[in-house]
Amino acid sequence: MNTEIDAAAIIGGGVIGGGWVARFLLMGIDVNVYDPDPQAERKITEVLNNARRSLPDLYEHRLPAEGTLVFSDSIEAAVANVDWVSECVPERLELKQKVLNEVQLHCSSSTIISSSTSGFKPSELQQGASRPEQIIVAHPFNPVYLIPLVELVGDAETTQNAKQILSKLGCFPLIVRKEIDAHIADRLLEAVWREGLWLVNDGIATTQEIDDAISYGFGLRWAQMGLFETYRVAGGEAGMAHFIKQFGPALEWPWTKLMDVPELSDSLVQTIADQSDAHSGQHSIRELERIRDDNLVAMMRSLKATNWGAGELLNNMDKQLSSEIHEAGSYLTTINRTIPSSWTDYNGHMNDSRYSEVFSVASDEVMQSIGANADYIEAGMSYFTVDMHITYNQECHHGDAITVETRIANGQGKKLKLEHAMRNEQGELLASCDQLLIHVDLEARKSCLPLEAVALELSKLADQHQPLGKPY
Amino acid sequence: MNTEIDAAAIIGGGVIGGGWVARFLLMGIDVNVYDPDPQAERKITEVLNNARRSLPDLYEHRLPAEGTLVFSDSIEAAVANVDWVSECVPERLELKQKVLNEVQLHCSSSTIISSSTSGFKPSELQQGASRPEQIIVAHPFNPVYLIPLVELVGDAETTQNAKQILSKLGCFPLIVRKEIDAHIADRLLEAVWREGLWLVNDGIATTQEIDDAISYGFGLRWAQMGLFETYRVAGGEAGMAHFIKQFGPALEWPWTKLMDVPELSDSLVQTIADQSDAHSGQHSIRELERIRDDNLVAMMRSLKATNWGAGELLNNMDKQLSSEIHEAGSYLTTINRTIPSSWTDYNGHMNDSRYSEVFSVASDEVMQSIGANADYIEAGMSYFTVDMHITYNQECHHGDAITVETRIANGQGKKLKLEHAMRNEQGELLASCDQLLIHVDLEARKSCLPLEAVALELSKLADQHQPLGKPY
Repeated sequence: MNTEIDAAAIIGGGVIGGGWVARFLLMGIDVNVYDPDPQAERKITEVLNNARRSLPDLYEHRLPAEGTLVFSDSIEAAVANVDWVSECVPERLELKQKVLNEVQLHCSSSTIISSSTSGFKPSELQQGASRPEQIIVAHPFNPVYLIPLVELVGDAETTQNAKQILSKLGCFPLIVRKEIDAHIADRLLEAVWREGLWLVNDGIATTQEIDDAISYGFGLRWAQMGLFETYRVAGGEAGMAHFIKQFGPALEWPWTKLMDVPELSDSLVQTIADQSDAHSGQHSIRELERIRDDNLVAMMRSLKATNWGAGELLNNMDKQLSSEIHEAGSYLTTINRTIPSSWTDYNGHMNDSRYSEVFSVASDEVMQSIGANADYIEAGMSYFTVDMHITYNQECHHGDAITVETRIANGQGKKLKLEHAMRNEQGELLASCDQLLIHVDLEARKSCLPLEAVALELSKLADQHQPLGKPY
Repeated sequence: MNTEIDAAAIIGGGVIGGGWVARFLLMGIDVNVYDPDPQAERKITEVLNNARRSLPDLYEHRLPAEGTLVFSDSIEAAVANVDWVSECVPERLELKQKVLNEVQLHCSSSTIISSSTSGFKPSELQQGASRPEQIIVAHPFNPVYLIPLVELVGDAETTQNAKQILSKLGCFPLIVRKEIDAHIADRLLEAVWREGLWLVNDGIATTQEIDDAISYGFGLRWAQMGLFETYRVAGGEAGMAHFIKQFGPALEWPWTKLMDVPELSDSLVQTIADQSDAHSGQHSIRELERIRDDNLVAMMRSLKATNWGAGELLNNMDKQLSSEIHEAGSYLTTINRTIPSSWTDYNGHMNDSRYSEVFSVASDEVMQSIGANADYIEAGMSYFTVDMHITYNQECHHGDAITVETRIANGQGKKLKLEHAMRNEQGELLASCDQLLIHVDLEARKSCLPLEAVALELSKLADQHQPLGKPY
């Protein structure tokens, strides 16, 4: 059976089918699609366009050239010469069986036939198949082109081969040990969905409040550690078995509407503790705490750029904190911050490019202070950097407090020439930067003179800075 | 009642109490702690040290000076002059009532008295209190110093004041409309926990497999949109009511062990649809899809730096993709990538500091190619940048493919002088960079000569590049 693929067929082009199409195509695999819906091409193109703008963003290297997309007239035509088939038709068992049987009739015996079903077991899907072991479940998650998880259920050899193939496409294939309705993830999702419906039904919380409780709370934890590893860390050095025995009684409390609870026998407690050791035992709790904290910080920081959820919250706090900054002496104090852990590189110090990031933000602060602010940019004017020269004097580490003092060395006409000095708490020079910006018309993307109010503020500051000389 | 605070008291210094101590102190609030446990000071110091290394990482501005931490001998001494009290004693109702009553006896009537209870209702905690409205629930989530969510339950005015206070400390306070055992989030967590225990108990999945199913799957979704908004997007343009009616039948299937399901009446469906409109109706589904995708990409990319979970997966894929890079002509092709959305700034183009990031990675590639790789760095040798001069020629946008060609202009002795040319797909010069690096001994943090193998490779390449001239 295949462990490499050149071509795939997708049967059914909805959101899930379209997502598979996108992941395969963008990873350089040719794709045939069969879907009798006259809207299929439009729908798939929409998913594909979303994928084209986001999937390449994940990587620091260019993806291979896109595969070729063909819309086939029949299942037979679609699957005749492919190494992989994803069945993505509606969630009705008889329909899926019928489609899978037709696929098997026309594809090679070495083709992996996978169903995207969220609920059915392979043994159900294989009914009537001539080669049942060829048919497995490969259950992806929306958006399929970004979310790594794919649950694989079925024949041991076929799922192993499928795992190899999907790993090369950037997926995280998870082989499920025993077939069960809804596999693993959807069972957990179903439990939360029911409890959420009860909370809305009983008027305890709105859908937004429930979403907020998730995305500002345990959602952040679960994006980087799951349920058990999170509790392992929370339980501390006493260990997982101790934690579960402590947590145990709460399970008996009438918190949720749904009360059938597995007995917390010694054997179940030991199983969980052993599995948790096998998973995370190579890290001490203190290490796990710091891994967790660095992950949480990194994810929340990453949402600043999209100004969403926890990231919006951080941006608002930054505004609150920035009001604490004052002008020190006569240069502008443009930066007053500490160095986050994620700025550290393999040399164990702040990466060289982060100096440039700090100076870039410093020039944003200068723009603020001369009135070239969000409104000014909204109105179509801004400054672009055309030259940046950084001299590195000293290393700088996670947690170090730094300041930048900035001098406006030239503010005449279209030019804005800045001199930045970055210092540590001891006042030692860490780096200096000469930066030249040019005022631009954002519509024409061409240089032009600043509006009068900005030009005035700028020349006022430049005059004050003139006699001071370089800040470094 | 208070809406500003200068001082807080924490009663009970475990993981949760210590987390409150850390958040208050690092936001400049003085804190008194009362905990009779002789280990309390050690435990709190451990939490505090974790918080000191991670909480400041969230912000681009410096936090205020830390408040003063005092270990008090009694509840009376701890709460006498504070504006806020967090009760964090073990989860036993009678104990909590006793502590809260003693707190109220000794604190001002304007002090907000909050319990961190994960399960009890305010009406239960207030029993025997002389001013019941003063006692509320403020339920935080571990790690308290990073996770924004705090559930507030109780008197309307007191919770509003508490919300104002906590917002200024960087929290996301969520007022719960009706008191209920376990508030909102822990009800959802409880549902997942039970289902997870069943999966382990029945041998369907190990704890690690369940954690993987979460953190490579819906955990990523939930860190930025919750349950309902995620389904709103998945449902597409047909709308939330349509989606729920479609999803409805699955609720009746025997997927989970716990089967009490709210009736999906027209009225409940409409309630959910209306609440979802109120929450997310200002965005079209297409907008929400792109917000979601940008958030997912940003979070997964952020986990690359910690090489954890989805980030580790991306790093491995990057290694796979990087093998596709070859030397083009005679310069080194050090970069071949596209520009991610998160690199765009308010000017609608790649931020100036990202050019520097690209050139920094380009120099890492040069180091790889001369054998100054991970093993070499592990052995205590590396290169540090001492000078970087970037000239910006053209703008560059999300999705643009770029390459960097690098010339080794000088590789003699300790010096490594690089000339980088960044071009777009049309071959147009986007930016050039002259970068000077110095070879260092990582132990001494001082310059030194490279080891012979690296020196040899370097001089070989430098000789080949000598006649080529600058790449820009």
